Amino acid sequence: MTVTVLNAILKPLLEPRLPDWVDARWYASKDEAFALAPAAEIAWFDMHSKDDMAEVFRRADRLKWLNSIYAGVEAFPLDVLASRGVVLTNGAGINAVPIAEYVVMLMLAHAKGYREVVRAQERREWLTQSPGKRELFGSEVLILGYGAIGQEVEARLTGFGAKVTKVRRSPGPGTLGPDAWRGELGRFDWIVVAVPATPDTQHMIAAAELAAMNSDTVIVNIARGSVIDQDALVTALEAGKIGGALLDVTTPEPLPPEHPLWTLDNAQVTMHLSGNAQTLMFQRSATRFLANLARYRAGEPLIPTVDYAAGY
Amino acid sequence: MTVTVLNAILKPLLEPRLPDWVDARWYASKDEAFALAPAAEIAWFDMHSKDDMAEVFRRADRLKWLNSIYAGVEAFPLDVLASRGVVLTNGAGINAVPIAEYVVMLMLAHAKGYREVVRAQERREWLTQSPGKRELFGSEVLILGYGAIGQEVEARLTGFGAKVTKVRRSPGPGTLGPDAWRGELGRFDWIVVAVPATPDTQHMIAAAELAAMNSDTVIVNIARGSVIDQDALVTALEAGKIGGALLDVTTPEPLPPEHPLWTLDNAQVTMHLSGNAQTLMFQRSATRFLANLARYRAGEPLIPTVDYAAGY
Repeated sequence: MTVTVLNAILKPLLEPRLPDWVDARWYASKDEAFALAPAAEIAWFDMHSKDDMAEVFRRADRLKWLNSIYAGVEAFPLDVLASRGVVLTNGAGINAVPIAEYVVMLMLAHAKGYREVVRAQERREWLTQSPGKRELFGSEVLILGYGAIGQEVEARLTGFGAKVTKVRRSPGPGTLGPDAWRGELGRFDWIVVAVPATPDTQHMIAAAELAAMNSDTVIVNIARGSVIDQDALVTALEAGKIGGALLDVTTPEPLPPEHPLWTLDNAQVTMHLSGNAQTLMFQRSATRFLANLARYRAGEPLIPTVDYAAGY
Repeated sequence: MTVTVLNAILKPLLEPRLPDWVDARWYASKDEAFALAPAAEIAWFDMHSKDDMAEVFRRADRLKWLNSIYAGVEAFPLDVLASRGVVLTNGAGINAVPIAEYVVMLMLAHAKGYREVVRAQERREWLTQSPGKRELFGSEVLILGYGAIGQEVEARLTGFGAKVTKVRRSPGPGTLGPDAWRGELGRFDWIVVAVPATPDTQHMIAAAELAAMNSDTVIVNIARGSVIDQDALVTALEAGKIGGALLDVTTPEPLPPEHPLWTLDNAQVTMHLSGNAQTLMFQRSATRFLANLARYRAGEPLIPTVDYAAGY
């Protein structure tokens, strides 16, 4: 039997489906988690406080595999986990479907001027011309970051007849290499940013990249606020140098009420809601964990694992 | 040379691409159209006044083929055209791509509670929970009307992982026959109405159909207002018997300011803008007309032609 320490809120989803070699122990408080930690070979600890996280890992010295529902692992003591050889599986891609739906919604809403339609409805005014007349059909889309989210976005946009180009290392049709995309920025109608937040991607869209876009280009950011130089973005938006920015993520979060992004006509702020617009996150995470339990038993690689050097 | 009478506003799009057997004559006013009509073998007359339409067809007694940009042909004297054996090609499907984009936008906006996000942005309020948590992924969609629009909607929703069922006469996977769909209404999350407006489809969604839906079912109407019994719909929406109605079309149009649909939380009115949310309508119509010119010359059937008995 393999001691596996799990949050009790997951019990209804997990317990009926756990294999018989798992000795599941459930915690309902952080103190219970601290008490159970030393016995754990497998654990799923997601705590709000960084200090609690550090404490639970200090105690969990037999841990071989740690699971998390979160995609971003900035709050975990990655150096400690790496030095102990713990495998960390994270929530990367768990929210890819609802996030991809959100991306397409934002693109369509911008294309059709849908915010103006909502306001006209509130005024009970029958518009005779669509406030927006763009189409996704035939438009050129660059996807920066070709993980689960980028791939789900691509699948949907392809159904709209958009022409999707993605940035990835391995060459292929519709692909630009990591050094090639900057030189082509001027030809895209939409730029979807879906890269992980790492030191390498910090401000990857800054003044030079914004200057290379055209006045219709719309940026959609569902990665992290830090990926874009937000001050440079505001300057470009205010000057109308780009067409718009649809921002599910900002710097900081929450965005302070006085920030100019709230009121720019060509910006949208959607409050990091994209991944939250679903009811299936725990089910999806539980299903993935159970699949990884089977891989663990069979000695196969777990999916997805965090690369401690890359930070995601 | 075949005398072909065309609106002068189409000249820049058509003239450079017309075949040499076409003797094109351009009208810039209704009086010029009246004067040119008697010589026309082919014509493209779209006039706003029904009386002007009647007059131009009274004069156009050599006409063999009439083209129109409009999908709905209620304004044409179909009996006169039928009795003279004139072939009528209409604009059915010309707007299918932008309309299908609009349908998916409305479904996503409803699913995510996006109107509430727009309003929160206006208040500069950082929401922490998505006002809507539905997904298109895995949802059950019924498409009523499987013409160009229905097919374009299906293509896009399939990319989202929605389960699409369509109503059509020919049996097949994911298909319900014209008599079968009413008995299955309770199992759909979304019902997209994309049928032509004819006597047969008048009020095809009425009190009985609404009663058979469930409290989450959302109707999307991009056909014509007359396809739904609007009073019954308002009653169902007010009572929360269905989840919502996303109405690009209403009865009448424009909807009067005092109409309850404007203010119901679970209704949206988008002012017949879906087909208008594009810049390519004239190009698409011109391209189709040119393809039909080639078919006409070759003695092949024109596409699409109006069935005078069916009325579309």
